[in-house]
Amino acid sequence: MRFIIQRDRLVQSVQDVMRAITSRTTIPILTGIKIMVTEEGVTLTGSDSDISIESFIPKEEDGNEIVEVIESGGIVLQARFFNDIIKKLPTDLVEIQVSNHLQTIIRSGQSEFNLNGLDPDEYPHLPQITEGNMFSIANDLFKTIVRQTVFAVSTSETRPILTGVNWQVENDKLTCVATDSYRLAMRKIQIETNNPAEYNIVIPGKSLSELSKILDDSKETVDIVITDNQVLFKSKNLLFLSRLLEGNYPNTSQLIPTHNKTEMIIDTKEFLQSIDRASLLARDGQNNVVKLSTLENNHIEISSNTPEIGKVIEQLKSKSIEGEDLKISFSPKYMMEALKVLEGTEMNIKFTGAMSPFIIQPTNDDSILQLILPVRTY
Amino acid sequence: MRFIIQRDRLVQSVQDVMRAITSRTTIPILTGIKIMVTEEGVTLTGSDSDISIESFIPKEEDGNEIVEVIESGGIVLQARFFNDIIKKLPTDLVEIQVSNHLQTIIRSGQSEFNLNGLDPDEYPHLPQITEGNMFSIANDLFKTIVRQTVFAVSTSETRPILTGVNWQVENDKLTCVATDSYRLAMRKIQIETNNPAEYNIVIPGKSLSELSKILDDSKETVDIVITDNQVLFKSKNLLFLSRLLEGNYPNTSQLIPTHNKTEMIIDTKEFLQSIDRASLLARDGQNNVVKLSTLENNHIEISSNTPEIGKVIEQLKSKSIEGEDLKISFSPKYMMEALKVLEGTEMNIKFTGAMSPFIIQPTNDDSILQLILPVRTY
Repeated sequence: MRFIIQRDRLVQSVQDVMRAITSRTTIPILTGIKIMVTEEGVTLTGSDSDISIESFIPKEEDGNEIVEVIESGGIVLQARFFNDIIKKLPTDLVEIQVSNHLQTIIRSGQSEFNLNGLDPDEYPHLPQITEGNMFSIANDLFKTIVRQTVFAVSTSETRPILTGVNWQVENDKLTCVATDSYRLAMRKIQIETNNPAEYNIVIPGKSLSELSKILDDSKETVDIVITDNQVLFKSKNLLFLSRLLEGNYPNTSQLIPTHNKTEMIIDTKEFLQSIDRASLLARDGQNNVVKLSTLENNHIEISSNTPEIGKVIEQLKSKSIEGEDLKISFSPKYMMEALKVLEGTEMNIKFTGAMSPFIIQPTNDDSILQLILPVRTY
Repeated sequence: MRFIIQRDRLVQSVQDVMRAITSRTTIPILTGIKIMVTEEGVTLTGSDSDISIESFIPKEEDGNEIVEVIESGGIVLQARFFNDIIKKLPTDLVEIQVSNHLQTIIRSGQSEFNLNGLDPDEYPHLPQITEGNMFSIANDLFKTIVRQTVFAVSTSETRPILTGVNWQVENDKLTCVATDSYRLAMRKIQIETNNPAEYNIVIPGKSLSELSKILDDSKETVDIVITDNQVLFKSKNLLFLSRLLEGNYPNTSQLIPTHNKTEMIIDTKEFLQSIDRASLLARDGQNNVVKLSTLENNHIEISSNTPEIGKVIEQLKSKSIEGEDLKISFSPKYMMEALKVLEGTEMNIKFTGAMSPFIIQPTNDDSILQLILPVRTY
């Protein structure tokens, strides 16, 4: 194996596949990056068994030569060292050559590294996925729906299924739901599919977060192929394969209240900042809660109190309040996380009493829904 | 106590005095910020007993009103909460008022915080320093000399005196020396004093670092007053008081070799980058060393080797090499830290054999000197 490559392109691709690589693997070869060189270009692979990422660097792009292939072949190199080295090489071009006994030479300017490689034949084979049924989402929309749901997954392994995001595809509609059983985030979008298949899968939250970090904001799309226990995301020069979580995701639709007792419309940013301030005196408190009370004349009061430190009270004007008077307590953390992913300057909160879950949505947009369980303090 | 203040100025001053405040103090009131209000303005104080910082916010500056004093007085407020709160207040003006029983109200827009304060009379008195003998250094020069020396102080408490920087004042010259006994950093500057006093003190490295972070890059100066066990730094609206380290600082002048066997001139940046690359394969090695060897034709070779990972070799052209051939090993960390604070594009390294300390200086500038002990590997 021997090739010369533009350093910046190599650095970018290595950083992408590094997202799948962890040093805490029980399979030593998975701490490496697999590099395969063919006449077409260079393919880099990283994997931790749960997530596998393949990044392809074509020989040529838009008429510019990116890789000069001198000899095909492959090698596995320690990911951490390889990544650190190429980032610091002195010139724009890098030559990588495998000599006998897997010894790999990395040359750039007057600098020559000699790394001990591993046999690429010993690298685990990625599962093959037949690409029959698939649907596509634009990169930026994909990143948005992930951002609007993935923060609500559970971080506890007591119910592993809740560490994933539930994706349901039905009638050209994708519904994404995440919940840690204290709050729930839901986002619906229209998709275009080439088949009428229905899916109900649970994708690990970590997989969606990592893929979001790799995808650029361009107008490219992600093609999504779902199988029994894997999901494959394909973007330009990139394959991202994740295992699915096994088990039945709870039926969350019954959690969402269908009627309400108090409804208000508030400026999203003002409300977020007010909760943020109130949380300062809530974080050390026993309950870590912020209170919301309705007042006269469409005003609401946000307050919190930690006796040993102090208390905070502030009033906000809401655009409208309808229904019963209300005093309710909730976690400022859950509220702020939900508000931060809402799109739209105004939002609608619908309460069903102080003990029941309430829902938050942008006004005039029911494709996003955030649900929070209140904290009992009265 | 009651006053109205521009929020940005308050935030800046609070952040400055916060640098002296630690939550790990044994004196509970020192987790607070002391706020004293007089007809002249507002004085904030933070202290951890070792370092004390006072920041003064004048009532008026350049004709603009900064503070409106309604009633003089004082209070001590929990620093962490106070700092977090004022940063997030909704409007540009903040009103702070102490009501009965040390209860303190912070108002901004529709937001009202109520904090439990402490009695300012119970806050420790700062040592008073009579300002007889002093000298001055421009802010930017002060920050430079600190940056060029403080990285070399010891981080180990086995010889506490080495955790400080030795400042010697003699004949209008200030010499700053720091060493952890493996390397040494020295910087000399001319100063102007109003007296012929001589000083030989050791200032805790932490004090110098923190003060450097507070001083702005303006053309202001720091006035320095030295007493038996304290040093006072005065800058515009700022008092920074630090205890001195007790004990005798080792006589370091005898460590610096006065003649050499090999001398070379190298491009500072090229050399730094080369050491940086070589250090990638040195960090996990048993010795954590990089080797330097002289070659023919004014070339040098930088290399390192960790058998289980790999090795790196690269050649650099030096501008000149004089004297004996040399093979020497040293810590890449110490070398890089020394090179990063050298000013000048070219530097001079003077070696006195593979087992002796060597010195690094910018060419044509002997006001800076970096000394490193080699590592024995041959």
